Amino acid sequence: MTKTLRAAAALGVIAGMMLFAGSTQKQKAEDQAKKEIRDVLDRQVQAWNRRDLEGFMQGYWRSPELTFYSGGTTVSGWEETLTRYRNRYQSAGNEMGTLEFLDLKIELLGPRAAFVRGRFHLKMSSTEPSGIFTLTFRKFADGWKIIHDHTSTAAG
Amino acid sequence: MTKTLRAAAALGVIAGMMLFAGSTQKQKAEDQAKKEIRDVLDRQVQAWNRRDLEGFMQGYWRSPELTFYSGGTTVSGWEETLTRYRNRYQSAGNEMGTLEFLDLKIELLGPRAAFVRGRFHLKMSSTEPSGIFTLTFRKFADGWKIIHDHTSTAAG
Repeated sequence: MTKTLRAAAALGVIAGMMLFAGSTQKQKAEDQAKKEIRDVLDRQVQAWNRRDLEGFMQGYWRSPELTFYSGGTTVSGWEETLTRYRNRYQSAGNEMGTLEFLDLKIELLGPRAAFVRGRFHLKMSSTEPSGIFTLTFRKFADGWKIIHDHTSTAAG
Repeated sequence: MTKTLRAAAALGVIAGMMLFAGSTQKQKAEDQAKKEIRDVLDRQVQAWNRRDLEGFMQGYWRSPELTFYSGGTTVSGWEETLTRYRNRYQSAGNEMGTLEFLDLKIELLGPRAAFVRGRFHLKMSSTEPSGIFTLTFRKFADGWKIIHDHTSTAAG
């Protein structure tokens, strides 16, 4: 091998190592983002199961621009979404049950955006409502937050 | 004004112009992306209204990883989604009606990802089904495609 070829081969190895380091770093950042999003969802489930709706709502963007779609109807705003949950699960004759998220599929759409597909299951005293959801997440200064929720069930 | 102050002021003006040019360029790219997404949706409506389901399906990512959520049920894959539409709108006793998308809200999540909220309305001979949807878009080599659709109606 000539000196030039050796130098070219060495450069090739270095470039390869840099590319590998870059992709490893990107993979690490993605894994970290997914873990943070998963934590938000885990905290939501824990809050729900101690009957803490305000805590559950911490996973949502505290903004009038938050949107919540469910069974053909739309709600806009963090406060309005909390009110919907209160009316549905904490008003007279209703119960919150035990919440579980299943089949979570977290997919990044960029360094500061992601969407999550999954199923929810509620174990109540006499019924077990379940359904599917799509969550759009954005990363803010205070972490990942749901900016849009679309949930549907066989009943709507 | 001293020479130093004049120079500083001139630099400030230049920096401001550069920032402005940068944000204008970013805004232009975002406007262009939104226009392209809007075009995909417009072409879907046109295809539907000439009874061209394959044409309508061009808006969706042609992949087994495409997901379609509707009224509590999930479908995976482009072919499977087309089959669902065929069974629902082109089988015996069914009609496609005239489709309209309303209240479209296109939001970019990065240079190559976006999500769209909107409503659909179908005018059929005796009924007018309607509902809401959330679409997740990614930009591929051949343009913007829906990679996930979550639709719900008051009936499911």
